[in-house]
Amino acid sequence: MTYSVAVSGASGYAGGEILRLLADHPEFEVRTVTAHQNAGQPLVQVQPHLRSYTHLTLQETSAATLSGHDLVFLALPHGASGAVAAELADDALVIDCGADHRLESAADWTAFYGGDFHGAWTYGVPELPRLSGTQRDRLAKTRRIAAPGCNASTVALSLAPGIRAGVVEPTDLVSVLAVGPSGAGKSAKTHLLASEILGSANPYAVGGTHRHIPEIQQALRWAGAAAPTISFTPVIVPMSRGILATSTARIVPGTSAAAVRAAWEDAYAGERFVQLLPEGQFPRTADVLGANTALMGVAVDEAAGRVVVVTAVDNLVKGTAGAAIQSANLALGLAESTGLPVNGVAP
Amino acid sequence: MTYSVAVSGASGYAGGEILRLLADHPEFEVRTVTAHQNAGQPLVQVQPHLRSYTHLTLQETSAATLSGHDLVFLALPHGASGAVAAELADDALVIDCGADHRLESAADWTAFYGGDFHGAWTYGVPELPRLSGTQRDRLAKTRRIAAPGCNASTVALSLAPGIRAGVVEPTDLVSVLAVGPSGAGKSAKTHLLASEILGSANPYAVGGTHRHIPEIQQALRWAGAAAPTISFTPVIVPMSRGILATSTARIVPGTSAAAVRAAWEDAYAGERFVQLLPEGQFPRTADVLGANTALMGVAVDEAAGRVVVVTAVDNLVKGTAGAAIQSANLALGLAESTGLPVNGVAP
Amino acid sequence: MTYSVAVSGASGYAGGEILRLLADHPEFEVRTVTAHQNAGQPLVQVQPHLRSYTHLTLQETSAATLSGHDLVFLALPHGASGAVAAELADDALVIDCGADHRLESAADWTAFYGGDFHGAWTYGVPELPRLSGTQRDRLAKTRRIAAPGCNASTVALSLAPGIRAGVVEPTDLVSVLAVGPSGAGKSAKTHLLASEILGSANPYAVGGTHRHIPEIQQALRWAGAAAPTISFTPVIVPMSRGILATSTARIVPGTSAAAVRAAWEDAYAGERFVQLLPEGQFPRTADVLGANTALMGVAVDEAAGRVVVVTAVDNLVKGTAGAAIQSANLALGLAESTGLPVNGVAP
Amino acid sequence: MTYSVAVSGASGYAGGEILRLLADHPEFEVRTVTAHQNAGQPLVQVQPHLRSYTHLTLQETSAATLSGHDLVFLALPHGASGAVAAELADDALVIDCGADHRLESAADWTAFYGGDFHGAWTYGVPELPRLSGTQRDRLAKTRRIAAPGCNASTVALSLAPGIRAGVVEPTDLVSVLAVGPSGAGKSAKTHLLASEILGSANPYAVGGTHRHIPEIQQALRWAGAAAPTISFTPVIVPMSRGILATSTARIVPGTSAAAVRAAWEDAYAGERFVQLLPEGQFPRTADVLGANTALMGVAVDEAAGRVVVVTAVDNLVKGTAGAAIQSANLALGLAESTGLPVNGVAP
Repeated sequence: MTYSVAVSGASGYAGGEILRLLADHPEFEVRTVTAHQNAGQPLVQVQPHLRSYTHLTLQETSAATLSGHDLVFLALPHGASGAVAAELADDALVIDCGADHRLESAADWTAFYGGDFHGAWTYGVPELPRLSGTQRDRLAKTRRIAAPGCNASTVALSLAPGIRAGVVEPTDLVSVLAVGPSGAGKSAKTHLLASEILGSANPYAVGGTHRHIPEIQQALRWAGAAAPTISFTPVIVPMSRGILATSTARIVPGTSAAAVRAAWEDAYAGERFVQLLPEGQFPRTADVLGANTALMGVAVDEAAGRVVVVTAVDNLVKGTAGAAIQSANLALGLAESTGLPVNGVAP
Repeated sequence: MTYSVAVSGASGYAGGEILRLLADHPEFEVRTVTAHQNAGQPLVQVQPHLRSYTHLTLQETSAATLSGHDLVFLALPHGASGAVAAELADDALVIDCGADHRLESAADWTAFYGGDFHGAWTYGVPELPRLSGTQRDRLAKTRRIAAPGCNASTVALSLAPGIRAGVVEPTDLVSVLAVGPSGAGKSAKTHLLASEILGSANPYAVGGTHRHIPEIQQALRWAGAAAPTISFTPVIVPMSRGILATSTARIVPGTSAAAVRAAWEDAYAGERFVQLLPEGQFPRTADVLGANTALMGVAVDEAAGRVVVVTAVDNLVKGTAGAAIQSANLALGLAESTGLPVNGVAP
Repeated sequence: MTYSVAVSGASGYAGGEILRLLADHPEFEVRTVTAHQNAGQPLVQVQPHLRSYTHLTLQETSAATLSGHDLVFLALPHGASGAVAAELADDALVIDCGADHRLESAADWTAFYGGDFHGAWTYGVPELPRLSGTQRDRLAKTRRIAAPGCNASTVALSLAPGIRAGVVEPTDLVSVLAVGPSGAGKSAKTHLLASEILGSANPYAVGGTHRHIPEIQQALRWAGAAAPTISFTPVIVPMSRGILATSTARIVPGTSAAAVRAAWEDAYAGERFVQLLPEGQFPRTADVLGANTALMGVAVDEAAGRVVVVTAVDNLVKGTAGAAIQSANLALGLAESTGLPVNGVAP
Repeated sequence: MTYSVAVSGASGYAGGEILRLLADHPEFEVRTVTAHQNAGQPLVQVQPHLRSYTHLTLQETSAATLSGHDLVFLALPHGASGAVAAELADDALVIDCGADHRLESAADWTAFYGGDFHGAWTYGVPELPRLSGTQRDRLAKTRRIAAPGCNASTVALSLAPGIRAGVVEPTDLVSVLAVGPSGAGKSAKTHLLASEILGSANPYAVGGTHRHIPEIQQALRWAGAAAPTISFTPVIVPMSRGILATSTARIVPGTSAAAVRAAWEDAYAGERFVQLLPEGQFPRTADVLGANTALMGVAVDEAAGRVVVVTAVDNLVKGTAGAAIQSANLALGLAESTGLPVNGVAP
C-alpha cells in the first residue's frame, strides 16, 4: 500500500530533511509540500539539493492544503502547529516536528514557551527506555506523534538507561552539547551568520534557560527519576549538522563499573538505530551524518565517581526527521526501519 | 634594555606563536630559532605567516645553540625539555611550554605521563587565585617558568574563584571543552587530518584519562580544595584554535546567587587578561582569537544547584605562548602586559 | 540475480564511499573487504560510520582474496592496481578507482605519473559527450572500467558540451576548483592536518603540474578538440568533501548567447545525474553532498567574451565511487541509476 | 602628535577591524564611534572582541558626531557615505571604506551601482603599479581616500605588474576567488547563514555582474591596459576571512618565463606589505589572517601559455581596514607601516 503524504514547512531545514528521507521510503509518497514565504515557487528552487522533487511546487500552509493525506508532517515554528492540527482528520497520522505537543505539563509549557498549551501527543523516540519497556510500545496505532527536540532526545537517550537501572543518581546530571547551527533553523539572524560561527565556539541558553530542559526531565521521569535535575549547556560549533552530547551522572556508590556499563548494554541491545560502541570507543558526529543512528560511548570515571556518556546524533535525522519517520512507521505497523539509513556520510 | 631570546621548537604551533607575539614585544629580540626536522631551513619557509622573520634560519635544537641568551623558550614535545634545560645557565630565564615541569607530584607525573620526573617550576598563570593572593606573586624574579597546559589553565581559572571563596563544592566538578586541533600540535596523525575533523565533533581522552587532569587538581588545591575531583572531557571541533570550556560546580547550599557571582568578580577585578562579562553574557572563542585574553561568563542555575562558568581562550596565546610571555615579563620586572594583545581577531 | 562484490582499499575514503553506496544497492552484495595496514580489524572499527557492515573483517589485499567475485572494486594508491588486476579473471568486472588505467597515452602517463604503463580501460563517465554519442555507449559489456579522477571528470563534463558543439574555442581554457581535502586521501601528511586547512584556502599543483590535466585533455579530444590547452588550478578549502569547478572558455566569435547555452542543454537533457540549472542559477557543493549528481550552471559573459560553467560535484560520489557504480551498472546491463542517490544532504 | 579619530559603522565588520588595528597605532586616538541600529550601546557589547575599547559608547552616525576629528573613517553601506562626507571639513582626512568614491567613470557607477554619483577620491592601494610609479605617489597630502574593494584590489595587485611590463595580454584575463563571507558584511541574510556556508562552496555574481569588475578594469587601465577584459568569479568558502585569488593572463608570445617573473619581482621589490614568494611557492589565506600583507605566488604555465598568479589577502585588513590606515599614514606623512601588522595569525 502507498500512503499519501503532505509536508508543511517544506522550505525549512526540518521539512527539507523529511523530504530527503522520504525520497527513499517505499511506502510513502509525497503529494503536497507547503510553505509560508516561498509558497508558489518550485520546491527545488528553495531546496536545490532535492533533485528528485522537480515536479512539486510549494503551496500555502493551511488545513485545506494539508487535508486529505494519510500522513501529515508539520515542520512549523512552535506555536503554529496547534491550530492547524486541530483541523486535520482524526484518522490522519499527524507528526508534529515542532515543540507544541511534546510536554505533558502545562506549567512547564508556560514557563519555557508560553502561549496556548495544546497538550501532549505520543513522544516519538521509540528506543527511549521507560520504567517498563520502551517508548516504542506507546507508538503503535497512535495517530498523533510529537517528534522530539533534537537536543532533548539525545540527552534523554544518553541518561535514561542508567536511571532506569538505578546505577546513577537522577539528580546533579550535567550535559554539555556541541551542536551545529542547523538546529536553530533557517531564519536570518545575525548571530547565526557564517562569519559569526566559522572558527568559533558559541554558547547559548547558559544557566538553565534552554527549552529542552523540561523535555529531558519528562523523559527521565518516565525512566524512573522522581525529580531529575540537570545542568544543560549547548555550544554552537562550526559544523552545519550534528550533536555531540557529553552527559555525566554520579554513580550510585557501591556500583561496579561492569554494572554501570551493563545498564546501557541492556537498554540498547538489538537496537538498529541506537548503538553502543565497544568499551574505550567514542563516536564522532561525522559517523552519523545523514543517518538515523545514535552512536554512544560509555566510560566509567572512577576517580570522579561519574559515568560519562558521549552520544553523536544528526540533529536533522535521528534528532528530528528520522525520528518522525521511524515513529510513523511504527504507528502504521510498517517495519520500523523502513526507508531510514543507518550508515553515516563520512568523511 | 633589550633581552636576547632563543626559541626552540620554532617550527611547531607553540613555537610559531611565541615568535608571532614576540615580533611586537619592545624589550625582547629573537636571535635564535631552533627545530629538529626542519633545521637548516629559513624560518619563513616553515612558518610562512611570520613575514617579519625573513632574516632567521632554523638551527638544531641543542644546549649549545640555546645557550647565551637572556631568555630561552622551550616548545618541545614532553619529555624533551628536561635534559636540555639542565644544561642552560642558572641566570637565564627559561620558560618551558611543554609539560615536563608543571606537576609537583611525582606520582601524578608517573601516572599520567611516565618517564623521568624533573620537578616543578613556577607555574605560569599569573591571575590564578590561590588561598592567599595569586600565582603572580610567585613569578617575580623566578628564572624557571612552566607555561601551563592550555586546557588545564582554562579550567583552573574557571573554577578556582568559587573554590577559594568557599561558594562551590570542590568535588564533583564537571568540565567539557570544545577545543581546536592546534592544541594537539603539528604532528601528522590520521585522526587529526582535516577530512576527519571538518564537519565533525570528536571527543578524546574520555573518562578521566586526559593528562591535564592532575594539573587542574593541583591548581585547585592551591585555591583551597583538599581533594578536588573533576570529570573532564575535551571535544575537538572544526576551528583551528580556541578553547571554550563549560565548567560546572555544585553551589554550597545556602549560598546566594549574588555571593556566587561575587567570588568571580572579586577574583578578576582589575585583571587585564582575565575578564568577566556582565551577567547574562557569555564569550565565544572568536572574541579572543589571537589575543592573550580569557573571557568568562558566569551563570547561577538555581534549579540545577550549579554554577556554570563558560571561558573562552585562544589555546596558543593565553593557553600557551601568551601565558609564557606574560610570566616572563613578570619574572623580569617588566610591565606584565608588555607586547601582549588584548583584542581578538573577529569575525 | 545478486552479484558478489569485493572492495579493496576498504579502509580509505574511496573504498569507504563505495561501501556506503553499495549498502543500498539491491543487486550487489559485498562479501569481501580488503586493506593493507588495517587488515585483520573489523571494518567498522576503521570506518565507524558504516554501521550496516558490522559482520565484515578486513582481509589482506591480494589477488587471492579478491578473486572469485563477480565485481572487484580497486581503491588503491596509483601504481598498485596494475599488478593486482592482471591476476583477476577476465570475466570478472573490475573497476579501478585509481589512476592506473585512465590514460591512453603512454607519454602522458610517463610525464605526469611515471612507472609502468598499464594501458587504458573504459573510462567511467557515462554522460561525457563525445563527438558521436556519449561515453555511455562504450561502457556496455565492458569488463574493465577506469573510474575517473574527480577533478578531471568535473572539468571534462563542464567543458565538453561547448567543444563538441563548436561554440567555444578548445584552447585557452581556464579552470579553478575549490576542493575538499578528502580528494587527497587518508594519508597522514602535515599539510593536510585540520589545523592547516581550517580557516584557510590552500592552492596546490599551481602552474600546469596537476596529474588530472592530461586526463581532461584526453576527454576534450574525445569531444572534438584537436589540441586542447587548459590552465588548471585546484584550491583546497575547509570542507571535507566537494568540488566546485569554475571553468571558462572563449566563445567562438559570432556565436549567440542562446546557442552557447543550447550546447549544454542538448548535452545533458534527460540525464539524471548531470543536471543543468535554469539560467541565472548556480550550484553549491552542499547541494550534491553524498549524491551522485553533478549540478551545473552556465553563464555567458558577453563583456569578457567567455562562457563560465560552474559545476558542483561530491568528489567521493560522482567524482569516484558513484561514477564507478554507475558504470558498473551499465556494464552489467542493470538500470544505470540502481542504488545511486540523486538528492544531496543539505544543509 | 596624536590625531583624533572617528569611526562610523563601528558595529560592522569593516568598522570593527579599523578599530582593532587602530588600538595598536601610536599616533591615532579613537575618540568617537558611531553606528545606526546599535547607537546607544557600549561598543564592546556589539564587538566583544575589542576589549581595549570598554570606555566607548556607540553614537548616532551623523555629520555632527563625526565632525571635529582629524581623521574620519566611513564604514557605511554604499550610497550612504556621499552625503555625510559632503558635510565634513575640507581639512579633515576622510577615508571612505565603502564604494561611493572608488570609480572615476559615472557610467560604470550607474551600470554597476546606480544612484547618485559622487566622483572619485584618491584610491587607497599604495603599492598598485601604474604606468609611471605607483599609486603611493598620489596619496601624499590627499584629504580624501577611497579604500579599495577587497576583491578588486587583490586582483588588481595580481595582474597590474604583468600588464605594466607588457608581458601579458590585457584582455581575456580570468580570475576566480575563494572568499570568506565576512566580505559580504554583517547583515542577516539567509544565504549567509552558517548552515548554508559550512561544508559548502557557493559561487555568486557569476557571469560578469560583480560590482568590483569596473574597479579592477580602472586599476588595470592605470597600469597601461587600454581596454582590459576580465572574467571574474567569486566563490564563498567556509572561512570567516580571507581571499585567495587565482588570476591568469595570456603571456605575450615570445616572452620568456624569466621575463614574466621579473615583472612581478620588479613591481614589488622592497614592498613590506605585498610580498612575492620564491618560485614554486604559493600562499594560503591563513598566512595573512589578521595581517596587512598580500602574499603572492607566480607560476608560468608554458603548456597553457598563461601566467598564474595566486594572491592571498585578509579581506578585512589588506583588503579594507589595513589599506585604509596605510593610506592614511601616507596622507599624513607618517611612516607608511605605522601600526600595521605584517605577520599573520596561523594556524
